[in-house]
Amino acid sequence: MSEITNLHDLPLVVGVDIGGTQVRVAVLQGATLLSRVDLLTGENAIPERLISCIYNAVRKALDEASTRLDQIIGIGIGSPGPLDSHTGIVFDPPNMPGWHNVPLRDIFKEHYDLPVFVENDTNAAALGEYLFGAGRGSRSMVYLTISTGIGGGVIINGKILGGISGTAAELGHITIDRHGDRCNCGNIGCLESIASGTAIARRANEAMAGDIDFRNWMSERLPHNIAVSELATLPVNKDESGQKNLVDARLVAEAAAKGVPLACEIIHDAAEAIGIGLTNIIHIFNPELIILGGGVTQIGPLLIEPALHIVQERAMKVPRDAVRIVQAQLGTDAGLVGAGALIYSNIS
Amino acid sequence: MSEITNLHDLPLVVGVDIGGTQVRVAVLQGATLLSRVDLLTGENAIPERLISCIYNAVRKALDEASTRLDQIIGIGIGSPGPLDSHTGIVFDPPNMPGWHNVPLRDIFKEHYDLPVFVENDTNAAALGEYLFGAGRGSRSMVYLTISTGIGGGVIINGKILGGISGTAAELGHITIDRHGDRCNCGNIGCLESIASGTAIARRANEAMAGDIDFRNWMSERLPHNIAVSELATLPVNKDESGQKNLVDARLVAEAAAKGVPLACEIIHDAAEAIGIGLTNIIHIFNPELIILGGGVTQIGPLLIEPALHIVQERAMKVPRDAVRIVQAQLGTDAGLVGAGALIYSNIS
Repeated sequence: MSEITNLHDLPLVVGVDIGGTQVRVAVLQGATLLSRVDLLTGENAIPERLISCIYNAVRKALDEASTRLDQIIGIGIGSPGPLDSHTGIVFDPPNMPGWHNVPLRDIFKEHYDLPVFVENDTNAAALGEYLFGAGRGSRSMVYLTISTGIGGGVIINGKILGGISGTAAELGHITIDRHGDRCNCGNIGCLESIASGTAIARRANEAMAGDIDFRNWMSERLPHNIAVSELATLPVNKDESGQKNLVDARLVAEAAAKGVPLACEIIHDAAEAIGIGLTNIIHIFNPELIILGGGVTQIGPLLIEPALHIVQERAMKVPRDAVRIVQAQLGTDAGLVGAGALIYSNIS
Repeated sequence: MSEITNLHDLPLVVGVDIGGTQVRVAVLQGATLLSRVDLLTGENAIPERLISCIYNAVRKALDEASTRLDQIIGIGIGSPGPLDSHTGIVFDPPNMPGWHNVPLRDIFKEHYDLPVFVENDTNAAALGEYLFGAGRGSRSMVYLTISTGIGGGVIINGKILGGISGTAAELGHITIDRHGDRCNCGNIGCLESIASGTAIARRANEAMAGDIDFRNWMSERLPHNIAVSELATLPVNKDESGQKNLVDARLVAEAAAKGVPLACEIIHDAAEAIGIGLTNIIHIFNPELIILGGGVTQIGPLLIEPALHIVQERAMKVPRDAVRIVQAQLGTDAGLVGAGALIYSNIS
């Protein structure tokens, strides 16, 4: 299905969006959620226990949407990777302890006797944007999500670029600074290690250690912030005085917006890295469209404008003139809509 | 055509490989050259003049192969980019002065009344390796050629990854050192600016300026080398004493093989950059196969082994275990075979 023409004709699907902290389940018609059930993943989310909770959530979601299982044409599952989308086996997601080579697709297929497709969560979100969001009408596009981590999803002629093991498009793990820090993935100087929410927060905490003014500025604002940390949040750190600090990317952006020099520097550095990442994507894929999503992009022009300036300055003219760079449209529902989109994309 | 099964059944094609210094024309059956005509591009290769020379070369190649034009099913043309493979228009190749938006495909189509396909030379070579070389039997692969510059070609499910303007897969122009030097393309710290033959030679010349022993070692060997410079060659430089120097990547590799410390350092640095480039490719495409071609890879284990070591150390386990990294098989004929392969790939 390369483009959805009439949204009302779309059959119903179930979308399951598995994350490290919560699982969301919905009955969907295209991008419309007819019901939604959220459940916490919990600390001991061994596969058997979590899967049985998901079965319950699916039953509840069907009830809430007044829908019977036989009205559903398939179940799409977005899960943290690495996973093999061809076989539906989830390998060892770093934030899903206890998960090891789980044949998620076959488990669900056997339980429901319905078509089931499993895809890396970012690829699913990319497909959601492609079919129902900012990517509608395009044939090929790149989705870049900048959040706690940085992920990518690439659609070429309507199909997810999966690679031989379904782990392609790890666009946050392109080395852009060969002399940089080691990334969580084991590689050096990845885009994620410089421009993710976690990286921005880490750099702010490091900067605070060496700059009393910056630390004071941050400390005064911390009480407001501790409760609201939609963006990446560092684990609680202690500074020299033994005081706890908790600074996230949102607070750093707020400080930068008010002109605090160290915060400006950190945000500008992340923006430059994002601009380099975008330039790399343009040179690699020569895409028609790049869609930017994820909480960190909500920092807005302060982050995005210098990034686009880098693209103007550095990308080759022909592919630079051909690309449109836009914001994602599906927001926090991207994962669920994307999970459902797996069914629309695979069953025509 | 995803795989060629019987090479003897293949129809005849004409391949044209346009380069900055020479144009090669051949009548081909698969990877077999039935004839070959080379001509120098010359200094004033304005399109009209060069194209008329190519027409003559095609006639000569047909004669030499005792073939009539009506036995040919199509003409494939590989040309320096940037170009749009959909329309066959060649934009402004940096090493083809006077060329500006030349509708190469339509010009040849009108002249010969045959199917004509035009592709960026590296993409064509990638397709050649895919159909007739080291890529046979694979479905998806990445071709990386390290020569004067560094280029890439990506095949996904049998099709060249072209992008919206046909300029995708510029794998030499991925920034891997955000604080690096400006590349010829205008970007900063591109793989090409560190690990191409030109970059290796440039670094050696810079190193010689500051190190008398290294300069002496190199100078003693220069007479042998000036005539043979298959690898990238710097324009003649003058050192402080006004003496001319001409050091190419091959000589640097020779010095490194003999343990000259500065040369070892330069080759090792290029190897590290190539390893980073390969790791990036693995994370981006999760390919089944990476084919390494181009003169610089002929340096051999001295360059390739440390590069593969970097891949082992830094690439994520799942895609790293899935990829095979091999040498190209078509050698200097890759461009011609690739040009012909455009016809086999597009006409089934």
